[in-house]
Amino acid sequence: MSQQRQGNTPGNAGAVPAFPDLPEATIARLPEYLRALHHLAESGSETVSSEGLATAAGVNSAKLRKDLSHLGSYGTRGVGYDVALLIDQIEYILGLDQRRAVALVGVGNLGHALAGYDGFASRGFRIVGLFDADVERVGKTINGLPVRHIDELGRAVVEEGITIGVIATPAGAAQGVADELVAAGVTSILNFAPCVLSVPAGVDVRKVDLAIELQILSFHEHRKASLTALPGGRVGGNQEAVGS
Amino acid sequence: MSQQRQGNTPGNAGAVPAFPDLPEATIARLPEYLRALHHLAESGSETVSSEGLATAAGVNSAKLRKDLSHLGSYGTRGVGYDVALLIDQIEYILGLDQRRAVALVGVGNLGHALAGYDGFASRGFRIVGLFDADVERVGKTINGLPVRHIDELGRAVVEEGITIGVIATPAGAAQGVADELVAAGVTSILNFAPCVLSVPAGVDVRKVDLAIELQILSFHEHRKASLTALPGGRVGGNQEAVGS
Repeated sequence: MSQQRQGNTPGNAGAVPAFPDLPEATIARLPEYLRALHHLAESGSETVSSEGLATAAGVNSAKLRKDLSHLGSYGTRGVGYDVALLIDQIEYILGLDQRRAVALVGVGNLGHALAGYDGFASRGFRIVGLFDADVERVGKTINGLPVRHIDELGRAVVEEGITIGVIATPAGAAQGVADELVAAGVTSILNFAPCVLSVPAGVDVRKVDLAIELQILSFHEHRKASLTALPGGRVGGNQEAVGS
Repeated sequence: MSQQRQGNTPGNAGAVPAFPDLPEATIARLPEYLRALHHLAESGSETVSSEGLATAAGVNSAKLRKDLSHLGSYGTRGVGYDVALLIDQIEYILGLDQRRAVALVGVGNLGHALAGYDGFASRGFRIVGLFDADVERVGKTINGLPVRHIDELGRAVVEEGITIGVIATPAGAAQGVADELVAAGVTSILNFAPCVLSVPAGVDVRKVDLAIELQILSFHEHRKASLTALPGGRVGGNQEAVGS
């Protein structure tokens, strides 16, 4: 009984929080574990060691054990984790059993790619609406879904039970779209526009800024170059050689 | 002299590390500060308070002050930070003065969108090569650049001084592409394929998995729903109501 879904023990509901208050970093790693576990399940594995799962997910095993202990999963000594059970536990915590309805706003290059991205459907989401302000795009079909005018967004959110909005508009339009999504009842936004959105408390925003990812890599390139320039030498000298 | 580029003080190179060993989370926020600072500069601001900059970047001001203190920037009491100077400092640390050459591998839907993404060029990067294994795509032009066959990747990396590779291939092809990039000398990879890449020490990988971002939002949706189901009630009961 080292692995059990929390809150499913009658009469023991107060002993562990039923909905664990997970650290943000742990939440961000759960999808990685899930992907690795699905891969293991497909290849016929019924159990996996913490080391094996950690390697497959690209984290260290101490971190993995700590993350999973937040879910009440400790594995079984000498056996490891039950793959199917751990998939259930993580999908439950992530709420992926619900096949959440997603609206995608903005079908330029990036939005078009997102609308055609198979990874959404296979991992617990349904894109149910595509919206754009450009009348040239309205009425076109992407991946079997028609592009609707942005004016229909609010009603669609309510009628189609949409809880997640994906914004792939230019930066200048993003706040207005976010306001409309929130007004219609959306409580989670994935923002691809390169701007900070202002939303009321209770609305979660995740931002994906592709250039920021490159800038972070640039930092590491710069750091590595500064180490290479004068190995073991004066760090002040390194920096001048690289940064000038 | 509250703001100075570290390592530029002759005879004092040992006092502060010339290339600061920044926490990962700080590195990830520097591009956000930079974007907000450019916006301030464009609107004519010469100085900005830590509160003002924190709001524009969407973080809290204590965190911002701590992040910038790692760069040796403390602002001036009653005045704040010098916008132009802070832009210089952050761009220097991120190595953005180098206009790094980027190779993009895989020009399906997502790769096509990335190849047309203006945000790269405007923020310090040059996509110099597009590559694909599909002969149907080779020879086509995206945003003025021809798509070349993947077999030309290694030579292009060397000849064109490419240090960053962006992988937008299907998961099954990503590791092979990463191996080729690394063999040719690329030391930073931005991976859009939904898989963990295995690379030698000294190579940095950042992963963008769009479905993972949605799954993280799904967790928050699930958490919020569990709070709403029985406000202030038994947490065990909440979870059953939501998760069944």
